[in-house]
Amino acid sequence: MEKILDKYKDFTEVKSMSFKELNMFSKEIREFLIDSVSKTGGHLASNLGVVELTLSIFKTFNLNKDKVIWDVGHQAYIHKILTGRKDEFDGLRQFGGMSGFPKKSESPYDVFETGHSSTSISAALGIARARDLKNEKFNVVSVIGDGALTGGMAFEALNDLGFRKTNMTIILNDNQMSIAKNVGGMSSYLSKLRIDPTYNKFKREVDNTLKRIPNIGKGMARSLERVKNGIKQMVVPGMFFENIGIKYLGPIDGHNIKQLTTVMNMAKNINGPVIIHVITKKGKGYKYAEKNPDKFHGVGPFKCSTGEVISKKCKTYSKAFGHEVIKLANKDKKVVAITAAMRDGTGLLEFSKRFPKRFFDVGIAEQHAVTLAAGMATEGLKPIFAVYSTFLQRGYDQVIHDVCIQNLPVVFAIDRAGIVGSDGETHQGVFDLSYLSHMPNMTILAPKCVEEMPNILSWAVNQKFPVAIRYPRGGDLDNIHMTPLENIEKGKWEIISKGEKVAIIATGKMVQYSMVAKEELKEHNVDATVINATFIKPIDKSIIEDLVYKGYTIVTVEDNVVHGGLGSIILEYINTLNKNVKILNLGFKDKFISHGKVEKLYEIEGLDPKGIVKSILKII
Amino acid sequence: MEKILDKYKDFTEVKSMSFKELNMFSKEIREFLIDSVSKTGGHLASNLGVVELTLSIFKTFNLNKDKVIWDVGHQAYIHKILTGRKDEFDGLRQFGGMSGFPKKSESPYDVFETGHSSTSISAALGIARARDLKNEKFNVVSVIGDGALTGGMAFEALNDLGFRKTNMTIILNDNQMSIAKNVGGMSSYLSKLRIDPTYNKFKREVDNTLKRIPNIGKGMARSLERVKNGIKQMVVPGMFFENIGIKYLGPIDGHNIKQLTTVMNMAKNINGPVIIHVITKKGKGYKYAEKNPDKFHGVGPFKCSTGEVISKKCKTYSKAFGHEVIKLANKDKKVVAITAAMRDGTGLLEFSKRFPKRFFDVGIAEQHAVTLAAGMATEGLKPIFAVYSTFLQRGYDQVIHDVCIQNLPVVFAIDRAGIVGSDGETHQGVFDLSYLSHMPNMTILAPKCVEEMPNILSWAVNQKFPVAIRYPRGGDLDNIHMTPLENIEKGKWEIISKGEKVAIIATGKMVQYSMVAKEELKEHNVDATVINATFIKPIDKSIIEDLVYKGYTIVTVEDNVVHGGLGSIILEYINTLNKNVKILNLGFKDKFISHGKVEKLYEIEGLDPKGIVKSILKII
Repeated sequence: MEKILDKYKDFTEVKSMSFKELNMFSKEIREFLIDSVSKTGGHLASNLGVVELTLSIFKTFNLNKDKVIWDVGHQAYIHKILTGRKDEFDGLRQFGGMSGFPKKSESPYDVFETGHSSTSISAALGIARARDLKNEKFNVVSVIGDGALTGGMAFEALNDLGFRKTNMTIILNDNQMSIAKNVGGMSSYLSKLRIDPTYNKFKREVDNTLKRIPNIGKGMARSLERVKNGIKQMVVPGMFFENIGIKYLGPIDGHNIKQLTTVMNMAKNINGPVIIHVITKKGKGYKYAEKNPDKFHGVGPFKCSTGEVISKKCKTYSKAFGHEVIKLANKDKKVVAITAAMRDGTGLLEFSKRFPKRFFDVGIAEQHAVTLAAGMATEGLKPIFAVYSTFLQRGYDQVIHDVCIQNLPVVFAIDRAGIVGSDGETHQGVFDLSYLSHMPNMTILAPKCVEEMPNILSWAVNQKFPVAIRYPRGGDLDNIHMTPLENIEKGKWEIISKGEKVAIIATGKMVQYSMVAKEELKEHNVDATVINATFIKPIDKSIIEDLVYKGYTIVTVEDNVVHGGLGSIILEYINTLNKNVKILNLGFKDKFISHGKVEKLYEIEGLDPKGIVKSILKII
Repeated sequence: MEKILDKYKDFTEVKSMSFKELNMFSKEIREFLIDSVSKTGGHLASNLGVVELTLSIFKTFNLNKDKVIWDVGHQAYIHKILTGRKDEFDGLRQFGGMSGFPKKSESPYDVFETGHSSTSISAALGIARARDLKNEKFNVVSVIGDGALTGGMAFEALNDLGFRKTNMTIILNDNQMSIAKNVGGMSSYLSKLRIDPTYNKFKREVDNTLKRIPNIGKGMARSLERVKNGIKQMVVPGMFFENIGIKYLGPIDGHNIKQLTTVMNMAKNINGPVIIHVITKKGKGYKYAEKNPDKFHGVGPFKCSTGEVISKKCKTYSKAFGHEVIKLANKDKKVVAITAAMRDGTGLLEFSKRFPKRFFDVGIAEQHAVTLAAGMATEGLKPIFAVYSTFLQRGYDQVIHDVCIQNLPVVFAIDRAGIVGSDGETHQGVFDLSYLSHMPNMTILAPKCVEEMPNILSWAVNQKFPVAIRYPRGGDLDNIHMTPLENIEKGKWEIISKGEKVAIIATGKMVQYSMVAKEELKEHNVDATVINATFIKPIDKSIIEDLVYKGYTIVTVEDNVVHGGLGSIILEYINTLNKNVKILNLGFKDKFISHGKVEKLYEIEGLDPKGIVKSILKII
């Protein structure tokens, strides 16, 4: 029999499918997803969890008018399939291929781009209010996970929404997970709702309604009035939401399309804000993903039949960080670690097991994480907040206001700095040097290789001021050997390799790229000095002055935007020396960087060794 | 009779005062506050609201061990009086004098510095967890307003606190106000609690407990056990908090010391997180402040007997903004305005009255405000988010992630850029150029004078990309006349006054300072060109190139930190021209700037006309 998915053309078809067909369709979609993502890698588990949910949205709403915003966005794969992008899955998250997130440039049905958590209610509210001001009529839906609900801005939006009673629907996709198991009082509360006797009551009532409305597909118009009237009795407590002015419907089974569409139809007909609490299973329908939803959250290519991930093992910065934190914690009981729902990604899994009382997962709550760390530091603890570069952006104000002003010894372990690759624009860590380096009292450094991480980290936790350590995703370049710096001294750089006339000052992994570039430059009779700018702030003025007075051409190389970054700090300092020096600042340009393989993107940005060589040859 | 306040030495005295004495003391404190703040200006209304609350804290807790964190911090005046700083009130918020916020350098009892809203629960939680890890015993209290509770990070902290059940007390100071009337679903919820029949029930029960414990001061140890046992029955719904795992006590009368201390004692003896809901009146005890709490929130010197504020009227940037927004809204119904609880300060009061449906006060929720605006922009509205420079720091990630990546036409009207004066470190707007200018797709400009604001703003709302307009507190310099630019063209600067050899490129009000500097330079036979860098991003490359090729010495002047700001953008560009140019970047240095008069601080930072002249003479 021909598959529905094979003959599927556009989403109007979903509206006319029977529930039986929809159930078949969801099975096919699951198979397709598992097969496709096994080849490209991608966000599998969260998408498997929302197959029925997405189909129900397409069945209930009219995507030609109605607007659906997917929070975090990585669970919009089914949405992409249904809006004509099935054939693009071959190139998922590849350079030039389809993004792993909603993208307006891909489809008119991607109405708002997402990537970081907890933004969808705000965006949906903006859209709904614009609709009301323009006297238009359409539905606005935000689909948000229970993990994303731990982010403060989601609460800010709920608070605003409940107050002004804007007409919109929130679908709370509750799978009890962020990437890993979800935490927080809200999460416990949702669990209580799940086992609440009213849950079963609500389910019974929905079932009864379904019985009373024999053909909800066709007799919709007539039926709706009855559904509407029935609703008042069906609203079960969910008082957390009701208290701030948002109608609560649920909880309901997120894998039952009949139930889902019934309740979504109810919500559509309520005037004012509604939250539908939907219970789903992350990884649903693929046993390996059900068993290990965090492993299959964002996954590389894997073997379908066994769930075995095809990956080359390498020493990563994250792992090196994770090992060293444990060592430090063993030596010093003041060391504690904080994560914002990123325990595994940041390398803190083992730490969390060994030191459960000294490990704090605060949910997707970077703002709180920073200030929590600040509070701990005032009491003499040595808090380490391990966070991705792009997510620390959420705590920008708190780093200034709660850490730097008071000059508190908090360590920021900033993972995924530089290009992160397949997640694209929203996840590249290319701004941190620029947003951290203008903060007074902040010290910033970067290990030039994985082996140097322990030394840098152990130096950092013993300082009396804020320290940020930034390091990239993955590990070192192949075939390169670096000797880790043993003695770290604030503001001191390391001359890795001496040469003449040209000095490359690089930071972090860019030191490795620069060493390869140095070799290539030799072929052009250029013997460059390579310097590891261990510290991005403060810089090593004496090395710089020495280079300047000796007439070197200075080339700075960083995996950060040039403006406001290391190159810019060096340039500003050299400018005060009032000497005529040739300086070249290499780094990212003033534009967002799309998804693709890390190496490919460095090449495109001219920051791979070849690009560095080319730029240097151009100016000398 | 000698006043208690006159002979008061230290806070151990508060513990032994009778309730009668405490009530007298609070009267005296109010008189002192009104008299003192009438001379210096300061945050009056919020402090008048927490006199009894503060005394009750000092009566109940032992500040030599226990730690109290004041959210936002501007309501810590009574705390300052009680911890030995009464005599410093003459110099309140003056340069070199006492800060208007908690400052660790002032007192060991200021355990955590605050200024921005909603940080106190996170900080307190950090302190409490450090205490537990160190096996110490003391109480940790966060005092937070209902306004601050609209900030998402407060919710992030509640969520974490309720989950891990750390032992600490939150005192929710509910005066139904932020600076102006509070908004949000949470605020409505708190109102409901206030009129809830259980309120009265709770009050009765507290009264009964008080009767049953005749001498709570002395027989504390014995009594407490009874109080503790009585507590379970006394806990009234407050289910919003209970739901996420935090015990709720209240609401109680925040001006009744006996009630307050009783309930605080209860809280002290509950193991786990507790929130005490306290109802206070902002401005309590000074009729003019009770009537106009927002006017007396942060107030200049005023006449005690009449409540009349002594202020010189001048045309401010905020007012000019407020007028122009109304004009634009009249012309174009797509124009809408958003504020994060800063309606009056940003000049939007009149707009909110004229266009209530197009005005959105979202609470102290900058993150949400930014993304709400982004959502509106996707639907073709022209949202203007009016926000102080220092508070937009809270929305840093959202500006990048939700506005710039999608290149949405949101206008950021950034008030209080540069030095703001008496609020000090936490409020200076000295980072915005640095944190905005590395964002791809962002355009940044600044009016050089008040009269130019309308033209800049009306240009901004008609663009198809994100635009940030930054402008300072207050108005123009006296005795200076500037001709507002009529035709604004993206990236075009304006040559204000031609001269020779030296070119001053200044932004915003710094153009006025530079024009004064130009006059003074003439006395030293320097005739400087003065250029208004209308656009900070993108810069006017053709003007720069022209100056460079003509051999000018270039001086950049900005009221922002140098690193990452305008000077740094210009320097980076000139560096790519590969010409030998003398460049001097003037702006703020890499340190936090304390409180004081605006003019005084510019002078100290070397950015007043004299300072600019001095710096220029030094390099030529």
